[in-house]
Amino acid sequence: MKAKQALAFLSLFVLQVPAPMVGFGQPQHLSDYIRPFVGTQGEGNTYPGPSAPFGMIQLGPDTDRDLWDTASGYEYSDTSIMGFTLTHLTGTGIPDLGDFLFMPQLGEPKLVVGTKENPDAGYRARYSHDQESASVGYYKVKLLNNNVTVELTAGERAGMMRFTFPQSDSASIMTDLQHFLSGKRFKLIWSHVRVEDKATITGFHLVNGWAKERYLYFAARYSRPFDHYRIMSNGQEVKYDSYKTYRFRSRNEAAGTNLQFLAEYKTRPNEAILVKVAVSAVSAANALQNLDSEIQPQDWDFEKVVRSTRDKWDRELARIEVEGSQWDKETFYTGMYHAFLAPNLYEDVTGEYRGLDSNIHQAKGFKNYAVFSLWDTFRATHPLFALIQSQRDSDMINSLLAHYDQSADHLLPLWSLQGNETWCMIGYHAVPVIVDGYLKGVKGFDKQRAYQAIKTTAMNPDYDGVTAYARLGWVPCDQENESVSKTLEYAFDDYCVAQMAKALGKSDDYTYFRGRAGSYKNVFDPSTSQVRGRDAQGNWRTPFDPHFYGEGTTGDFTEGTPTQYSFYNPQDVPAMIALMGGKEKFVKQLDALFDYKEPLKPGVAEDI
Amino acid sequence: MKAKQALAFLSLFVLQVPAPMVGFGQPQHLSDYIRPFVGTQGEGNTYPGPSAPFGMIQLGPDTDRDLWDTASGYEYSDTSIMGFTLTHLTGTGIPDLGDFLFMPQLGEPKLVVGTKENPDAGYRARYSHDQESASVGYYKVKLLNNNVTVELTAGERAGMMRFTFPQSDSASIMTDLQHFLSGKRFKLIWSHVRVEDKATITGFHLVNGWAKERYLYFAARYSRPFDHYRIMSNGQEVKYDSYKTYRFRSRNEAAGTNLQFLAEYKTRPNEAILVKVAVSAVSAANALQNLDSEIQPQDWDFEKVVRSTRDKWDRELARIEVEGSQWDKETFYTGMYHAFLAPNLYEDVTGEYRGLDSNIHQAKGFKNYAVFSLWDTFRATHPLFALIQSQRDSDMINSLLAHYDQSADHLLPLWSLQGNETWCMIGYHAVPVIVDGYLKGVKGFDKQRAYQAIKTTAMNPDYDGVTAYARLGWVPCDQENESVSKTLEYAFDDYCVAQMAKALGKSDDYTYFRGRAGSYKNVFDPSTSQVRGRDAQGNWRTPFDPHFYGEGTTGDFTEGTPTQYSFYNPQDVPAMIALMGGKEKFVKQLDALFDYKEPLKPGVAEDI
Repeated sequence: MKAKQALAFLSLFVLQVPAPMVGFGQPQHLSDYIRPFVGTQGEGNTYPGPSAPFGMIQLGPDTDRDLWDTASGYEYSDTSIMGFTLTHLTGTGIPDLGDFLFMPQLGEPKLVVGTKENPDAGYRARYSHDQESASVGYYKVKLLNNNVTVELTAGERAGMMRFTFPQSDSASIMTDLQHFLSGKRFKLIWSHVRVEDKATITGFHLVNGWAKERYLYFAARYSRPFDHYRIMSNGQEVKYDSYKTYRFRSRNEAAGTNLQFLAEYKTRPNEAILVKVAVSAVSAANALQNLDSEIQPQDWDFEKVVRSTRDKWDRELARIEVEGSQWDKETFYTGMYHAFLAPNLYEDVTGEYRGLDSNIHQAKGFKNYAVFSLWDTFRATHPLFALIQSQRDSDMINSLLAHYDQSADHLLPLWSLQGNETWCMIGYHAVPVIVDGYLKGVKGFDKQRAYQAIKTTAMNPDYDGVTAYARLGWVPCDQENESVSKTLEYAFDDYCVAQMAKALGKSDDYTYFRGRAGSYKNVFDPSTSQVRGRDAQGNWRTPFDPHFYGEGTTGDFTEGTPTQYSFYNPQDVPAMIALMGGKEKFVKQLDALFDYKEPLKPGVAEDI
Repeated sequence: MKAKQALAFLSLFVLQVPAPMVGFGQPQHLSDYIRPFVGTQGEGNTYPGPSAPFGMIQLGPDTDRDLWDTASGYEYSDTSIMGFTLTHLTGTGIPDLGDFLFMPQLGEPKLVVGTKENPDAGYRARYSHDQESASVGYYKVKLLNNNVTVELTAGERAGMMRFTFPQSDSASIMTDLQHFLSGKRFKLIWSHVRVEDKATITGFHLVNGWAKERYLYFAARYSRPFDHYRIMSNGQEVKYDSYKTYRFRSRNEAAGTNLQFLAEYKTRPNEAILVKVAVSAVSAANALQNLDSEIQPQDWDFEKVVRSTRDKWDRELARIEVEGSQWDKETFYTGMYHAFLAPNLYEDVTGEYRGLDSNIHQAKGFKNYAVFSLWDTFRATHPLFALIQSQRDSDMINSLLAHYDQSADHLLPLWSLQGNETWCMIGYHAVPVIVDGYLKGVKGFDKQRAYQAIKTTAMNPDYDGVTAYARLGWVPCDQENESVSKTLEYAFDDYCVAQMAKALGKSDDYTYFRGRAGSYKNVFDPSTSQVRGRDAQGNWRTPFDPHFYGEGTTGDFTEGTPTQYSFYNPQDVPAMIALMGGKEKFVKQLDALFDYKEPLKPGVAEDI
């Protein structure tokens, strides 16, 4: 039975009961198979909050902002929540985003977050997984210290929060502009908050994070005008008191590095106050426009946003039908969900976005995407997109090319993050993404322009030893770190350049890059039957340990060992088998890789 | 003899000699009467560098960035120059601007500025007034430590620098993005520099200065491609050295708080290298566009820019013909020059500018101006503009109204500085500017919209005790500082609101504001025949000293004494005379004011 038939069959049963918000019953929708908590414990670094497919906004709870092991902000084993922020990365190894924290409070609002050990020292709130749930487009948690229920949903560029308060004379919703996922070493550079009217604020911060210069604006509209409001700066209310000081004159806006906004209310029992939010990398005005164009100013229908996002996911997941058990389908569609969370839409409803050059650009003829973790995604994710997301693949390729046009270094993205190049990981893997799309027939981008970009990137004179690699045939290990991994991955990327050169009839280029694509042999040491660091004079790295795990500034390998990387020559497996001495020896060596049990020997951690 | 006739007569002589670049001979042009050094010593706080009338860019030498007494950056008695920056305020009491310092050097470039006592400790250069000159649109100085001659000129949004080097293997032009006129207490928040091509850079900084959040971008094109270039961050070259660190990967751009760009050359004897520059508050792209649209990319004609700016000044100065001696004319036209330096054009060639709300706005139907020092200019400068600069007065009124529309506080500008409100000084003196323009027949702005803005401003519930003033008839001295000066100046502004209300047939408003306009009597104490602080209960400030100089958070007066402010009721002089006991007593009291010789007793300095 195909998945579609199965669902039709199942629907006979589930149609008789209300559609489950959190669907552990029989699914009515494919998206009910999504389990947002998958990957939130350990280093999966996913987030449980709502997000539209490839959406620009990802509302969610943050439990930690300092740890690299909690790069998405949420760690399932944490027992308290710092607050609810508007943006999140999924699955990365380094934290960033987590912009603009919202937190409901009762009593005199706390302005500092507190600690996991002592959440009551700040606005951090205890919670229990028993009173927490997440399903497609929806997240809910009850904060145990004040009995406020928080619900979140998200559309493409705008989201909604519903705070259900107990009766209180001193309820508040705080926005902390200082918060972001800092990984301890990153820094908030500046922020600004502004009261637009009695139920609307906008704000901004500039973050020197993993993305070294990231501008983000937000807009928030409240379902009820503030009874009272305050802007706090460094713990003090921002107000004009001329009798004491001239320091501040406006109570309606402030700039600085430690700002909170407090929307204050007297609430009835179980009163729900909703906050609609949107972001923009361009301006506060654009954030407001993103918000109002997606959720009309008078529209406060929380469930409508949930349904709309669920429908979007149903359409995306319907691209593949699978058979199997409930567990199989949950596994599959949750994986598909994770595959379709990023890259993220990165343009306003106006088509504007802040580019790599910090200028505001207009995406013409395509939708601009950001957050390209290419070293992670060139192998499988983008080839999948080329097959079943060809319009988005085309948009993404155009986004890569726009980045190239904006690059002071004349490079396609390596690991790009919202108008920034993080320079993370190795290779120039935008090349296989583009070439794969082109060869699979993805339309909507200029092939000659694309070829120019991939060739120029592969010939960059400054980037990561490419010049020496082009000259010698390998990246010399005495000049460049992770030299063997770079050699092998450049060679694969060059194979891709060659394929596109061939398809475009550029035979000289084909010959040249086909030559570079054969570089595997140059770092393969027959005496050990392993790939091995090699210096500019051609000498092998000595001593040599086939299980030394390379990472960072001293190793010859990138998050791997010689034993593992010896099997990296996907563009010419027969040549690799031949170098290893034929099929039998190859199989034996491959078995040895899988059978290897010793602990890895760590290299030096990457210094971002 | 009228000035025009005089010039025609004089031209008989001067036409026979070359037009003097620095015109201490017989003037051929009215602008030759301009003496740019006037006001550069002491607290005049003018600058000697070139500027077009009301121009957006003001190139000039900075000799100090820390002192409030050197708010324009240049103090004639200083003996060394820090460098040449692109923007300057004229005549203010607080420093700001001085953005993007350029400095030619020989040898390994210094990256820190050095001190006045020891300029050689940094890039600061000694100079002599013997080898310095300035005339309209032109400034020249020889740097004595390296024999580089620096010449500057400026158009409306773009300027040009000419550096004439001796022969050198290591000549450089440094751009320091950290520099601005900080007055010691202000802070650079962030900066960015980017190599656009081998002869072009762009950059940006965000300054928390007198203007609390000021964004400025620049673009610079060099007449010769760099032989070599470097970006320095915290004293280190920004480059990729993967073998040691991942910290930087691009040599073509960097962000941070201590950045310098070095354009490096091997120069021939007396080789001139020119740098064209422009600024924008919107973006680097707009700065480039401002530059290229004003001085075409292939155009390197320095003298053409000087001539163009001189012609602009000749047209402006020709609005008034004067008779008198050379000295009289120099005095008059230099005064007129200073009057026409600010407010400054504050929009890009695209019409875009960064508004008070930090959003990018498009000036539609007017040119946007910034830098409104209204407490200083409402009395004489703007009334002059209404008479002889009516188009610019109209543009300025529209600029004030745009600021009002963007104000989170629903206020017209008080002391606005390029997308910021500095909240400096007292009153709401945009009101008399608008009303004066309206009553003098200045066209091109919406009178009903203007009236709404002046009335709303005069009724602001938060601003500087206006609510108490409206209720009591005076600003109470126990609730508000500088309460008497505020009462008197509000009353004058209210008189102006009343006049416009009357002209628009709003009789209720006329009556109301005419009432407030009579507030002088409420702070006039008959027992001392002086204006005097009065608390909310109506009690007079005791003890009372008629010569206590008020300023800041404790005094009842604003940069003045009771004796002086007792004569401030310009809207009803007869009433003031009557309160003082008739003409005879009035004249006697006025004489006493002018005869007063005692030193002023200082109050508390304003805390910005």
